[in-house]
Amino acid sequence: MTLTAHTDQMQAVIMIDGALRLTTVPIPTPGPHEVLVKVRATGICGSDLHCLSHTAELLDAMKVVTGGDLFDIDKPVVMGHEFCAEVVAYGPETRGTIAPGTRVASPGFLLRDPFVLLGYAGTDIPGGYAEYMLLSEDLLVPVPDHVPDEIAALTEPMSVALHAVNRGDLGPDDVPLVIGCGPIGLAVIAILKMRGVGPIVAADFSPSRREMALKLGADVVVDPSEASPYESWRQVAETGDPERMARPNVLFPSGLRPAAIFECVGVPGILQQVLAGAPASSKVIVAGVCMQPDSFLPSVAVMKEIDLVFTIAFTPEEYAEVLGHLASGALKVEPMITDRVGLAEVPAAFARLANPEQDVKIVIVPSGR
Amino acid sequence: MTLTAHTDQMQAVIMIDGALRLTTVPIPTPGPHEVLVKVRATGICGSDLHCLSHTAELLDAMKVVTGGDLFDIDKPVVMGHEFCAEVVAYGPETRGTIAPGTRVASPGFLLRDPFVLLGYAGTDIPGGYAEYMLLSEDLLVPVPDHVPDEIAALTEPMSVALHAVNRGDLGPDDVPLVIGCGPIGLAVIAILKMRGVGPIVAADFSPSRREMALKLGADVVVDPSEASPYESWRQVAETGDPERMARPNVLFPSGLRPAAIFECVGVPGILQQVLAGAPASSKVIVAGVCMQPDSFLPSVAVMKEIDLVFTIAFTPEEYAEVLGHLASGALKVEPMITDRVGLAEVPAAFARLANPEQDVKIVIVPSGR
Repeated sequence: MTLTAHTDQMQAVIMIDGALRLTTVPIPTPGPHEVLVKVRATGICGSDLHCLSHTAELLDAMKVVTGGDLFDIDKPVVMGHEFCAEVVAYGPETRGTIAPGTRVASPGFLLRDPFVLLGYAGTDIPGGYAEYMLLSEDLLVPVPDHVPDEIAALTEPMSVALHAVNRGDLGPDDVPLVIGCGPIGLAVIAILKMRGVGPIVAADFSPSRREMALKLGADVVVDPSEASPYESWRQVAETGDPERMARPNVLFPSGLRPAAIFECVGVPGILQQVLAGAPASSKVIVAGVCMQPDSFLPSVAVMKEIDLVFTIAFTPEEYAEVLGHLASGALKVEPMITDRVGLAEVPAAFARLANPEQDVKIVIVPSGR
Repeated sequence: MTLTAHTDQMQAVIMIDGALRLTTVPIPTPGPHEVLVKVRATGICGSDLHCLSHTAELLDAMKVVTGGDLFDIDKPVVMGHEFCAEVVAYGPETRGTIAPGTRVASPGFLLRDPFVLLGYAGTDIPGGYAEYMLLSEDLLVPVPDHVPDEIAALTEPMSVALHAVNRGDLGPDDVPLVIGCGPIGLAVIAILKMRGVGPIVAADFSPSRREMALKLGADVVVDPSEASPYESWRQVAETGDPERMARPNVLFPSGLRPAAIFECVGVPGILQQVLAGAPASSKVIVAGVCMQPDSFLPSVAVMKEIDLVFTIAFTPEEYAEVLGHLASGALKVEPMITDRVGLAEVPAAFARLANPEQDVKIVIVPSGR
């Protein structure tokens, strides 16, 4: 393919004014150390749903974090940071060692200064909701031939989950409790299962999500409207071997080994619910992304000596590790993919994802292949 | 001394209806495995100030934690859980290996079922704001002869600080930032200094507290009304050796080693301030005890991948370790003691402690020695 910058056009789904729209934008031009790739599959992430419905809150939070604007709220953004793509053309100052046509994956950022979060920039640096995008050559990971496009696209969310589990620093005897079986919770369950940590207790109000949790490796599932997830955890943890009972808290020597609780819901109020239910000395890995201000009782967290471990990212090493596990079959995520859609169907897919009974992960296939 | 249960009387300061009052109560009777001790010195703790001014909130939070009532809000409580005492008489089923007259210290709890937090129970199980109290024989630690009573009484708050520092899991190259130089913040500084961790950056609005922080081992002190503690931390951390720069965050590769921040203020809003100021990947050890509900932006904590490590207690091993450090001189806390008062002066001492310019730690000497 010969590129004529800003003359060739492509299809892309843009986000503007809180809505999604399929349109035509220029094919981007790779800068130094960058590669133009053709998008083969892009996962729709919960963060994308958040970004659409809470754009201003996201920008406010990022401003606190970075001091700057993630993107201009008045200009169109092309989302999509979970993708599998194929090398098309190299920009200047590249090595070009991966042949055009080769399938690649990459963490969702571009090594520019300042750093670009792919999927959260203007149409000149589109995310994976488009036919083409730019990647940093140094971050490319070739996708083994037998790994389907949509599975490779899930490397990103599975890396978020692997990182969350790594942040939890669990031992094989820990009894993890996963609160919320949306895409993040399910991914955490799959990673815990792969790591051999368990038994795994998982809670969700949705019957289909609980069924999915069992498919991905949960040992016990709980409907919070019928039973307390913390009580169910206690029953499972108590039946474990006496070594589990080795770390009593001074204030509250319950005799139970502290729990590792994965908070994968991310709505206001959930944190206080977890703090109220958690055994003393629990480690709570907060992987849910709550975009609104939240309120809680710090005194409860203090008196229980809780660790709140907030997590969202991953390292390039974790990303490469996950792709390896997907390729080897050690990590099985096929059940999470509930549908494949073309770019034109993305707005409808967002609407469907609001219903937990229907879908978990919808993958976009921009070429319509 | 021959004990005639509930006939001999003693002086004690009781808390009832949000006020303190000196009165006379029966000398308590030791149960099985318990020892009657004569109180020689008791520290006034920030928790005691909280307990007096936020009794209902404290009980509400404890109810979330334990499911029960810490104490009956309508009945008098004798506070005081930081003490040095002397053995008077043994109850039934004791070994009696520590001779009467020997000075002892003990973590502030009684090994009954259910567990009793000393200083938060009725007048029959008084805390150290009294002439006599009960201790569990198994928890007694003899106080070496050369350690003054009031220094031994500080074993408890220094154990809280040692535990907080242990929870922070700092390496010798870490640059800790201590927010708030009240008794907890100062104790944390003294422990960090003893451990050789540093340089230590400490922030407080009060000039006398900053001066005290320098005495106890802080290397750099900051007045938050004049400079950002986080910016001061950054300047100190950046001058360190390149090894400090080894752990960039994927989202925000700042090139700075993450901070260990000790939150020792404990008022609503402070947590969000810390989250906003903290570098990405910081560990925030929350040692301040905020008794009111607090609000924060979870998305900021998530995007920075912060660890919030809530801490309040300590282990018996940590307690014994601290008494050893106080005895060896490795841990120096004399500057923290700003006054000694008798039981009758306790209400006035509470009022004085509201002014950070005047006092840090006031120690009660019940016998008036």
